[in-house]
Amino acid sequence: MTPYIHKVNYYETDKMGITHHSNYIRFLEEARIDFLSQIGYPFDKIEAEGIVSPVIRVEYNFRKTTTFADEISIETKIEKLSAAKLTFGYTLTCKGEVCGTGKSEHCFLNLEGRPIIVEREKPEFFAALQNML
Amino acid sequence: MTPYIHKVNYYETDKMGITHHSNYIRFLEEARIDFLSQIGYPFDKIEAEGIVSPVIRVEYNFRKTTTFADEISIETKIEKLSAAKLTFGYTLTCKGEVCGTGKSEHCFLNLEGRPIIVEREKPEFFAALQNML
Amino acid sequence: MTPYIHKVNYYETDKMGITHHSNYIRFLEEARIDFLSQIGYPFDKIEAEGIVSPVIRVEYNFRKTTTFADEISIETKIEKLSAAKLTFGYTLTCKGEVCGTGKSEHCFLNLEGRPIIVEREKPEFFAALQNML
Amino acid sequence: MTPYIHKVNYYETDKMGITHHSNYIRFLEEARIDFLSQIGYPFDKIEAEGIVSPVIRVEYNFRKTTTFADEISIETKIEKLSAAKLTFGYTLTCKGEVCGTGKSEHCFLNLEGRPIIVEREKPEFFAALQNML
Repeated sequence: MTPYIHKVNYYETDKMGITHHSNYIRFLEEARIDFLSQIGYPFDKIEAEGIVSPVIRVEYNFRKTTTFADEISIETKIEKLSAAKLTFGYTLTCKGEVCGTGKSEHCFLNLEGRPIIVEREKPEFFAALQNML
Repeated sequence: MTPYIHKVNYYETDKMGITHHSNYIRFLEEARIDFLSQIGYPFDKIEAEGIVSPVIRVEYNFRKTTTFADEISIETKIEKLSAAKLTFGYTLTCKGEVCGTGKSEHCFLNLEGRPIIVEREKPEFFAALQNML
Repeated sequence: MTPYIHKVNYYETDKMGITHHSNYIRFLEEARIDFLSQIGYPFDKIEAEGIVSPVIRVEYNFRKTTTFADEISIETKIEKLSAAKLTFGYTLTCKGEVCGTGKSEHCFLNLEGRPIIVEREKPEFFAALQNML
Repeated sequence: MTPYIHKVNYYETDKMGITHHSNYIRFLEEARIDFLSQIGYPFDKIEAEGIVSPVIRVEYNFRKTTTFADEISIETKIEKLSAAKLTFGYTLTCKGEVCGTGKSEHCFLNLEGRPIIVEREKPEFFAALQNML
């Protein structure tokens, strides 16, 4: 898997001169979408399959600040996978040092918003995820 | 009409220590939605009528910077109204001084994305807008 | 303490039609700043005292979606306070139901970025926080 | 000059299912910073020279909507350059069609916020800009 690179934009900094903490949650989303694309499931394909996978929990631990023009490299992993829930783990590195770690939990819904059992209803997608554990 | 107040959030500042310029376009949207609500057309009512009114042009002129916790007062006016187009004008004031002015132009579409003649198809909405010229 | 109200802006929604999950982290910041202001420590006073209190960890648990124009009421509490760390807890309510809960952890630094012992160096601020436990 | 590519993020869409209009102003900033970098003046070098160049006016004309995962190609040009002011023009293309055009005007200040005559005080930077007219 290729790590995802986010180059910090000027508008992502705040008056402390650093990347505003809320933006890291957006970088995690970018990295997750890129990860799913790399395993053959870009978002449009997932939606075409009739699956949505909303965030039900997110956390982020800050170790070092970053700022404008910094290149943040994000490694995404699948940490847990069950019939009902998917957990991603993220490690963010900048200038050779870990600057933060994150986690996001997701459930699986159909387009009407009802929970689905991915393993049964979309076995190929489930297998692709399981393969990355 | 009551001016709309936006209090600048910390996350709206940038590393120059001021409100990032892109955010003013968002403040204009907030003020416009508040204005439409004040004349009896909150967004949900407009959508329920089957009208969308996307931005086709926007401009903003910066006179003074603002920063975190500043209260920006926004006066919204309808500058032009025709069968096909609606132009809003905005004056932003902070600490008693004009800090910027803006303009946004909008067309009228139905929910399928086709242009509509509001004057004919939604005469009451058109009258409410015309009344504010 | 008065709960903080955030009315969801149009630009805070995403193509799923709901408030984008990253924005809740921003709403927590708004609520926290309001809370500190209510206990007599608006941000400019804290900065004037020479203290910065960056986020070192944040989490958010999603229970119900919200969308444009929803009024989210946020109750902020101090959950933990030690010499080196401050933890806020947040409960978000919309239309009478809890829509999510959050937590943020903060350290205390001086303006040069070095950790400070707030209890010793800024006893009045520490007492104000402790008083809210 | 290489056009700048912005791939639309999920969090940049709104409940209409399209890229929220305010984000284009951010894409212009990204493209402008990339352009300056390409002509040998990355932002940190400009700041190191003691110049800031705030936006004093911005406009954007929308022709076609874009949405999540679209690749927007941005061509940046210097449209006008005078002792006191710099104007950039932008053409945004998506899927082979122009989706919008923009313009931003900037003044030149020193780090204390006073206007400077770039042609006299920073002749090399001025020449680099003039060379792109």
